[in-house]
Amino acid sequence: MEELGVLGLLDLVGIFVFAVSGALAAVRQRLDVVGMVVLAEITALGGGILRDLVIGAVPPAAFTSLGYVLTPLVASALVFFWHPQVTRLLPAVLFFDAAGLGLFCVTGTLKALDHGLSPLHAVLLGVITAVGGGILRDMMSGQIPSVLYDRQLYALPALLGATMMAFAHWLDLHGGIVTTGSAVLAFLLRLLAMRYGWRTPRPRGVPD
Amino acid sequence: MEELGVLGLLDLVGIFVFAVSGALAAVRQRLDVVGMVVLAEITALGGGILRDLVIGAVPPAAFTSLGYVLTPLVASALVFFWHPQVTRLLPAVLFFDAAGLGLFCVTGTLKALDHGLSPLHAVLLGVITAVGGGILRDMMSGQIPSVLYDRQLYALPALLGATMMAFAHWLDLHGGIVTTGSAVLAFLLRLLAMRYGWRTPRPRGVPD
Amino acid sequence: MEELGVLGLLDLVGIFVFAVSGALAAVRQRLDVVGMVVLAEITALGGGILRDLVIGAVPPAAFTSLGYVLTPLVASALVFFWHPQVTRLLPAVLFFDAAGLGLFCVTGTLKALDHGLSPLHAVLLGVITAVGGGILRDMMSGQIPSVLYDRQLYALPALLGATMMAFAHWLDLHGGIVTTGSAVLAFLLRLLAMRYGWRTPRPRGVPD
Repeated sequence: MEELGVLGLLDLVGIFVFAVSGALAAVRQRLDVVGMVVLAEITALGGGILRDLVIGAVPPAAFTSLGYVLTPLVASALVFFWHPQVTRLLPAVLFFDAAGLGLFCVTGTLKALDHGLSPLHAVLLGVITAVGGGILRDMMSGQIPSVLYDRQLYALPALLGATMMAFAHWLDLHGGIVTTGSAVLAFLLRLLAMRYGWRTPRPRGVPD
Repeated sequence: MEELGVLGLLDLVGIFVFAVSGALAAVRQRLDVVGMVVLAEITALGGGILRDLVIGAVPPAAFTSLGYVLTPLVASALVFFWHPQVTRLLPAVLFFDAAGLGLFCVTGTLKALDHGLSPLHAVLLGVITAVGGGILRDMMSGQIPSVLYDRQLYALPALLGATMMAFAHWLDLHGGIVTTGSAVLAFLLRLLAMRYGWRTPRPRGVPD
Repeated sequence: MEELGVLGLLDLVGIFVFAVSGALAAVRQRLDVVGMVVLAEITALGGGILRDLVIGAVPPAAFTSLGYVLTPLVASALVFFWHPQVTRLLPAVLFFDAAGLGLFCVTGTLKALDHGLSPLHAVLLGVITAVGGGILRDMMSGQIPSVLYDRQLYALPALLGATMMAFAHWLDLHGGIVTTGSAVLAFLLRLLAMRYGWRTPRPRGVPD
């Protein structure tokens, strides 16, 4: 994602925080060090790998960048030795996770547009970039992906940010303000949803 | 699949019915609206996406066609508001699901042959096209894929239809009659298997 | 993997043994014949398919080679009819599985290097080639992948063999001795770990 140079650092921050959430899932499931590293890597990189396979950008960025592979290792080492402390910092982890969500839905959408996909399909890939790693993390740790049932607003903020990004692109609006604005929109909606406990609906007639 | 023009409508019918089965699985698992849409999309499009990734037809058809993405949304909306009624129509759903199975095993085989795969590998991809979405649906809803254990004839009709299609292609027989005949063969075998309760065997010595 | 001609037979032996482990998992989970064939194929071929998708070698080798698809069918037939006897031969199965592990981590690394990946990423793909099929097998049979929690040295020997292979390649050392040496290193470490019950650590403070 060279075209996103200035976002490079934020990108690694997002990968780091996603990796922390994968490594913490490994602690909860009582996995060993191998399971922790695998879950950290797949949570951080899985969404982007799925996106790159779909748009034909192979090898995916995760397999050409050193930082993408090493950052989850650092996150794993941290959680391996200090997971009780990391767990106590969970509010901060959730804050940065929301930032990662906002960033990835926007960069995923942009990369898909750059590869010639329609705005609708670029939005779809933006959301996959943002939530795909978490889905793979949950599937590999023997659980239904939390994004499918926990009724938190997680996929929807990503959908909104990706849609704003694709819509601006369709209007021929480009540049850092549009990109940042779309990411911040998803980020803020996610924070507000956590703060006020907003929930997605279940199918009509299914009791809570 | 532009080369299959006349089959286009039937194609969307198959996608619609597969999406309904995904959305109904979401109701059974008490997922929220996000889970319902994800399962509907993955059930309907997953098999074709796997096939296209394998043959290198990227972006997969699901990421270039508007109808492929929107049809599962319509199915989700229907099931979201009227799932009790849809459940009561299950025999009709199973009937159209059998039609989708027949269609997808044949179109999947054809597309693989068009991309230069051997008849054997084209058959394999035809079956993956037909059953892959259902396998992903079950894996994402925390269950062993039903096609692996429920002893219904589901993969086998797809295998038979795909084999007839590939064999005809190998004999240099082409055209709508061959395609339709192969799809109808799989469709009828699936209907007969449901009607008469035909079952696949378990390994020798494993009790029922 | 034509460039690995002399390793061709060993390659099929590895695929056969991986397929046996998939078919035995199907017996344990009481799947039917369809489930057995699917698990045998995915266990044997899944790691290589993931690798080939990532490096863009499509169709993956599994979809161009006749032997790759037929060998798991033979393994399935064997386990279908004689699984009690095969289970009694489990020590031999584990021995050959270790050989397959050694072979696949090395051939996977080599193929990734041939496709221009960095040594680090080639090592990653070597490990994915060796353990990816088993992970997919466990995910499809409704279990957490054993490599993530069972604390056996399984991924680590693959990591060591892949690293030796990539390091030799980086030193411009090539040829059969280097390849065989790397595979044997992983193989022996796996055998020693089984013999002496070596175990990977859990995160600090997680009780056994």
